[in-house]
Order: sequence, then structure tokens, then C-alpha cells
Amino acid sequence: MEHFEQLNQCLQAGNLAELRQMLAEMNEVDIADFLQELDKEHTLLVFRLLPKDLSADVFSYMEADRQQLIVEGISDKEVQRVIDDLYMDDVVDFLEEVPANVVKRVLRTVDADTRQTILEYLKYPKDSAASLMTPEFAELHEDMTVKDALEHIRQTATEKETLDVIYVIDRTHHLSGFTTLYRLITTEGDAKVSACTDRGVLSVGTMDDKEQVAKTFARYDLSAMPVVDHENRLVGLITADDIMDVIQEENTEDMEIMAAITPSEKPYLKTGVFELAKHRVLWLLILMVSATVTGRIIGYYNGLLQSAVVLASFIPMLMDTGGNCGSQASVMVIRGLALGEVGMGDILRVLWKELRVGLLVGGILSLVNFGRILLFEHVGVMVAVTVSLSLYVTVIVAKCIGCSLPILARRCGFDPAVMASPFITTMVDAISLVMFFGIASNLLHLAA
Amino acid sequence: MEHFEQLNQCLQAGNLAELRQMLAEMNEVDIADFLQELDKEHTLLVFRLLPKDLSADVFSYMEADRQQLIVEGISDKEVQRVIDDLYMDDVVDFLEEVPANVVKRVLRTVDADTRQTILEYLKYPKDSAASLMTPEFAELHEDMTVKDALEHIRQTATEKETLDVIYVIDRTHHLSGFTTLYRLITTEGDAKVSACTDRGVLSVGTMDDKEQVAKTFARYDLSAMPVVDHENRLVGLITADDIMDVIQEENTEDMEIMAAITPSEKPYLKTGVFELAKHRVLWLLILMVSATVTGRIIGYYNGLLQSAVVLASFIPMLMDTGGNCGSQASVMVIRGLALGEVGMGDILRVLWKELRVGLLVGGILSLVNFGRILLFEHVGVMVAVTVSLSLYVTVIVAKCIGCSLPILARRCGFDPAVMASPFITTMVDAISLVMFFGIASNLLHLAA
Repeated sequence: MEHFEQLNQCLQAGNLAELRQMLAEMNEVDIADFLQELDKEHTLLVFRLLPKDLSADVFSYMEADRQQLIVEGISDKEVQRVIDDLYMDDVVDFLEEVPANVVKRVLRTVDADTRQTILEYLKYPKDSAASLMTPEFAELHEDMTVKDALEHIRQTATEKETLDVIYVIDRTHHLSGFTTLYRLITTEGDAKVSACTDRGVLSVGTMDDKEQVAKTFARYDLSAMPVVDHENRLVGLITADDIMDVIQEENTEDMEIMAAITPSEKPYLKTGVFELAKHRVLWLLILMVSATVTGRIIGYYNGLLQSAVVLASFIPMLMDTGGNCGSQASVMVIRGLALGEVGMGDILRVLWKELRVGLLVGGILSLVNFGRILLFEHVGVMVAVTVSLSLYVTVIVAKCIGCSLPILARRCGFDPAVMASPFITTMVDAISLVMFFGIASNLLHLAA
Repeated sequence: MEHFEQLNQCLQAGNLAELRQMLAEMNEVDIADFLQELDKEHTLLVFRLLPKDLSADVFSYMEADRQQLIVEGISDKEVQRVIDDLYMDDVVDFLEEVPANVVKRVLRTVDADTRQTILEYLKYPKDSAASLMTPEFAELHEDMTVKDALEHIRQTATEKETLDVIYVIDRTHHLSGFTTLYRLITTEGDAKVSACTDRGVLSVGTMDDKEQVAKTFARYDLSAMPVVDHENRLVGLITADDIMDVIQEENTEDMEIMAAITPSEKPYLKTGVFELAKHRVLWLLILMVSATVTGRIIGYYNGLLQSAVVLASFIPMLMDTGGNCGSQASVMVIRGLALGEVGMGDILRVLWKELRVGLLVGGILSLVNFGRILLFEHVGVMVAVTVSLSLYVTVIVAKCIGCSLPILARRCGFDPAVMASPFITTMVDAISLVMFFGIASNLLHLAA
């Protein structure tokens, strides 16, 4: 950010009035980024310079370690103001990351009502719909008149609340539908709220999985979604910006699993070396030991290799191409499953598709390979036939394994993303070598 | 969907009144899914049963081939009504997918103003911010009074418009900020709109790249974003639901590139076998030919292999583990770059991190491997040392290559996602074998 240099100059020169002026014109996300790069003392100094109505917003975009530093450095009164100005989901996100003494400090400073709400929210599991919701939303009783409803909003709503969608509840506090501010201001004042209420409202339960919530959100193009408890009483609201974060987290998680990494929510540069190593070594060990099976196969055919050692030089090409073909199919299917484009019942349709793709792609690759060997390698025609035929079969098998394992994994209740490149490659390696040596011993009349 | 069976029963029984009743209570996305599964005649029949205010919504969620079928089957008047009720971005998405005769038909039926707008929108490139925007938004002049502004909205706004954010323009039609309906109804009627206008409004240009727009959207947690032309005049609005689609498309694209697939926007099951093959075969060919380098290396060391053919059985384990280690590092960095968590200037920081992770992970893997070989394989200690040492070096090199190539690719203006598993694996294979044979010829005193 070119801004940051100017800000830093002001800070170094002690030109705080100008700094304050510049900060007031910046976006809260950018200010949070700037604070993130300062040392402890300057972080506190700059945070205190922020206009009152900005400081909570900036706070919500900072990382937990910086948030803790700020809470530890400001007065009780300031803590109280910041917490009051935060959305409840941001308060809870923060409290979940910091040590117990900071949590205690925060709970001590806020008023009894807020404390009660915070404690309630802290009880929800991390992956639940409730962990994404805020209690800052507008609700109207369906038998209010529109005029009263508008007056109610005018008097009670705060800047914090989402008013894109206003939920309507019945006398028993159950969610009965939604309306919008636009509808209210374009409806006759004497009409009941129920007259401009849309009953087709999608809601989620507090304990629903947040990934499922994100899917529903995306499928129905929503901008907000109400959360209800087990008795269909409205308890919170989830907004689109939180859902975007869930979608990105989920995609990161999928990509990490697909690369044989135990997923973590921390950004890469913030993760320590030991933690990174820990998240990677387990799968590497499993895959390394699995790969020895492939080694055993080569070991078993040592006699054959000894009498035709030239075959060894085709092993990497066979293994790599097989692995790549399998990965392509598995990634397409894993992604299709994640987006809901492919279902568990589609396994035969998918297999049939991939079988034909394999026949086509395998044909092209084998032909090119056959030509290349004849032209550039000093080996006999039969070796070229052996390698190309093995390649053909490998490609087809790889496509079929690659496309079906993710669906089977989902059926067995596992994450399909596990069945990506590393796992598929290890499997296809073994199979391709067995076929390669099998075809070689038959076509070249060699004994294992 | 369990619903669909009931709907189908009504349809088969000709019980159209009940069917209409059921449809009226369903969500438009689900109805679109249902229509998608019917044959041509029934699609038209059911579409015509839909309540008027639902049919355009349902239409917008259907695939282009079905949309075409409907437009070809309904009257000019019906076409006009559907198009009028659609958001402009949905109209344009549809027209971009269908043959010219359908486009002509649509343009002929709509009124002159709409035609003008459609033609303008069709000119924007597919990846531009403008391709996501709709002209259905509310704008206010900053020197209107709040009372007049509310009256203006009441009279001119339609159900279609987004009123979460209302953009404010100055006398020269330039975007000067935004306000909200909430602010308007809680401000004194005599005050000017400019008094409740927030000037810190982020906007994008019509020709900006849509991926960049999605990043800004996610970074600043926006729910809507104004689009301005090159003279900063407000021309359209982008909403969060369209951005979610862009984010998912972009993630799919990244995953496909990472699996050596030429990306496409079509869902997997809708893509034909030839198209799938076409998107996969190019990269496979490139990688296959690259893998022959690795084969050449083995060929070069044939003499060495002949005198110690047992070494061949460790090749798959070495290659796979090296590939997996490299992929892990590259995926973490590719994702970090995509999310903006890793910058191009971070290359040394990333290398230093991965070097240490490599030392750690490589150490663990080599030790386990050393123990496994001694315990389970009937080979000498020096072979175990050779293999484990090669593994150690391979892991470290793989981590360093895997993490730095994506950043270098970005620096050179390429998509970092290209530097994922398939490409890294092919490179690491060659390097690991050179080191393996180098170490073997030194430690085991074998001649190449």
C-alpha cells in the first residue's frame, strides 16, 4: 500500500493531527492492515487516534494477537465501547482466540445483558450456523400496522442492523416470513405488516453445519438468512459477507486436503514451521509407505528388468502420465460433488463418461508416445508397442479410478477431497506397473 | 428432491390446478431444477402454469438450452414480459449463450429503451465488471431533501431494485457517495441527502476484471458495489450473489489448472466427452514429453542400475514422495497468493519457511524410511543410507521448488496455479533421480 508509507512518516514525525486526519478518510480494512504492521506501542497509539465510530470496525478486521494486545492496553471503558460497537459474531470470534484472562477481562467490563448474550454465543460449536449469526437484526410482529412498524424501526434500529430484509414473527415469536424496508415504505400505513410479508422464507437451525448453510446461501442467491432455534423461534441472522468467508475457507480446506495436507484455518505466513510440518508429515508418511508397494512390484520383476533394463527408463513417464490422468478425473468429480453438480447417484454416468474420455485421451497419448519412441529412442518396435499399450491401459484405468473413488468416498461418509492427486497417483502407480510388466513379459517373452 | 416425485405425479395425472398450487409455494431455484428434468413439451406446459411474478425468476435460474426452448415456445407478448421482469445481467447472460435468431427474436419483442440497454450491455467483455452489473439500482441527487428523496423512492423504485445501499450522485451525475434507506428514514425530512451520505464509497470501472472485483468485494465485506464509467458516472450495480458465483468459478478454475486441465465454465456432467478430452490432452502431452527427460536420466544410469537393480525398486517411493512434498508447498503458496495472504515480495520469507519445513519433514521421512528398509528389505546398510539420504535431499529441494515457482510465475505474469502438482512433480522427479544416482554412484562405488 502506497498509503502506508505516508502514514508511517506522519507517525515517525509525531505529526498525530495529520495522521488522525488521514486515518479518518481510510477504509477500516486498510487501517487494520496498517495497524497489523506496527510494533506494540505504535499499534496502541494509532488505535487510540481513530475516530470513535471507526475503532470497533477496525478492531473487527485485526488478527486475534493484535486484538488481544489492544484489549490489554486500553482502559475498561474503552474495552466496553469497542465490544458494544462490535457485531456479536465478531466478539465471539475474538474471544474464541484469546487466553482466558482476556476473556474474563472483557466479560467483566461489559454490561450484564451483553455478558449473557456473549456466554450464550460462546456455547455454540465452531462449525455451526449459530457461530456465524449476529443478534443484530430487525424483527416486526405481523399484526403491527405498517405505520407503527416504520415508527418502531425509526426508534429502535441502530446503524449496526441489517435492514435489507426484516423478519416478521407471529404472536408466539415464531418466524413467519420476511419483508423489506422498500415494501414497508410503499405500502399503505394502515395495512398490517402481514399484508406485505413474504412467507417463503428459508431458515437454518442454530446447530446446522455452516458449510451446508453456505451451500443453501449460494444456491438460492440470498443476501441474508435467519437462524431459528429448535422451536422455530428467530434467534439470529447470517449475512452474505460471512458466507463468502465460509466459502473461501471451505475451498482452501478442499485444496489442502487434495494436496495431502491436514487443513488449518491459519493463513500460511502466520503458521509456524512446526505446525506446517505437523500438518504435512502424516499424509506423507502414509503415502510413502504405500509407495513401497509399487517398489515391491518393481522388486518382483527385477529379473525381467535385468534382462531388459531399458524398460526402466519408461517407468517415470508411465507413472506420471497415469497419475496426471487420474488426478484430472478426480479433481473434476471432487469439484462437481462440492458444487452439487454431481450427485452420489451419478457414479455410472460419470464412469461411462470417463471411460470414453480415457479411450480418446489414451489413444492420442499412446500414438504420440509410439511415434516418439520409434523416432528418438534406440529401442525395438516391440518395446515401443509394449510401452504404448501399457500407457493406453493405464490412462483408461486411471480415469476410471480417479472418477469413481471420490464418489465412493462420499458414499462411505468420507471427504471426497481425500481421493485427489496424491492418493490416486499412488494407486495408479502400482496398477500401471503391474500392467507394464505383465504386458512386457508377454510381448517381449521375458521371464520375471 | 422428494418434492419432484409429487410434482411429476400431478403432471402425469393432468392435475394441473394442484400442480399450479404446489409450484406457487416453491422456491424459484427448485422450480428451475424441476423444469430442467422435464421433456420439451412438459417444460413449456409447466412454465406457463407459473404465477406471473414467478416466471421470470424461474427463467433466470434455468440453463441456456432450456431458456432457449421456452423463448421459442411462448408468444411475443410472453417473451416481452419475461425479459422485462428479468435483471439486465440475467438477460445478457442468456443472450450470450443462445443462437443469433433467438437474440433477434428477443430484441424485436422488447421496447426500444430496453433494446438499447441490452445492446449496450452485450458489448461489454465477458470477464469485465460490467458483465456482472445491473442497471436496476436506486440513485439520489445529493441536493434533494430527505423527504423528497423518500417520496422519489416510493414512486419510482420497483421490487427489482436493491435498496440496501442507495447511491448518491452530484449535479454532474458523478458518484459522490452512498446512503441507506435506514439513514433516510431516521434523518430529518428537511435535511439534504448529502447530510446522510457516506463519501467513502468504493467503486469499480466497467472494464475492470471481474476477479479483481470479487477480491475487493470479499476484502471489504461489501453487499453491493457501484460500477462507474471512465468519467466516474454511475452506470450499474453489482450485488453479492453474483460475486459468490464469481468466487466459485474462480476456485473451480484454479483447481482445474492445478490438475493440468484447461479450465471451462461448463458443469462437469453437461460437458461432452470430446470437450473434456480436449481440455485435458494438451497438458498431458506436454507433461508426458517432459517426463521423458526423467526417463533419459534413468537410461543414462542403466549401467549403474544393471549392477544394482535393487535400486530401481526405490524409484517410485522417491518420485512420489518428492512430488507430494513439492505439491504441498506449491498448493499452500498458490492459495496464499489467490487469497492475497502471500505477496510477490514474500519469496525469501516463504523460501526460508519451506527450507525449515523441508529439513524437519525430510528428517522424519528419511528416518522412518531408513528404519523400514533395514527391518523389511533385504538390502545392505549402504543402500538404506543411499535411499534415505536421497530422500532427505529430495524433500528439501521439492519444498523449495514447490514454494518458489508459483511466486516466480506470478512475477512473470503467469497464473501461479500452473505451478501445481503435475508440473512440480515432473520437475522434482528429474532432480530426485539425478541426486539418487549421484549419491548411489558415490556411496556404493558404482559406475554409471
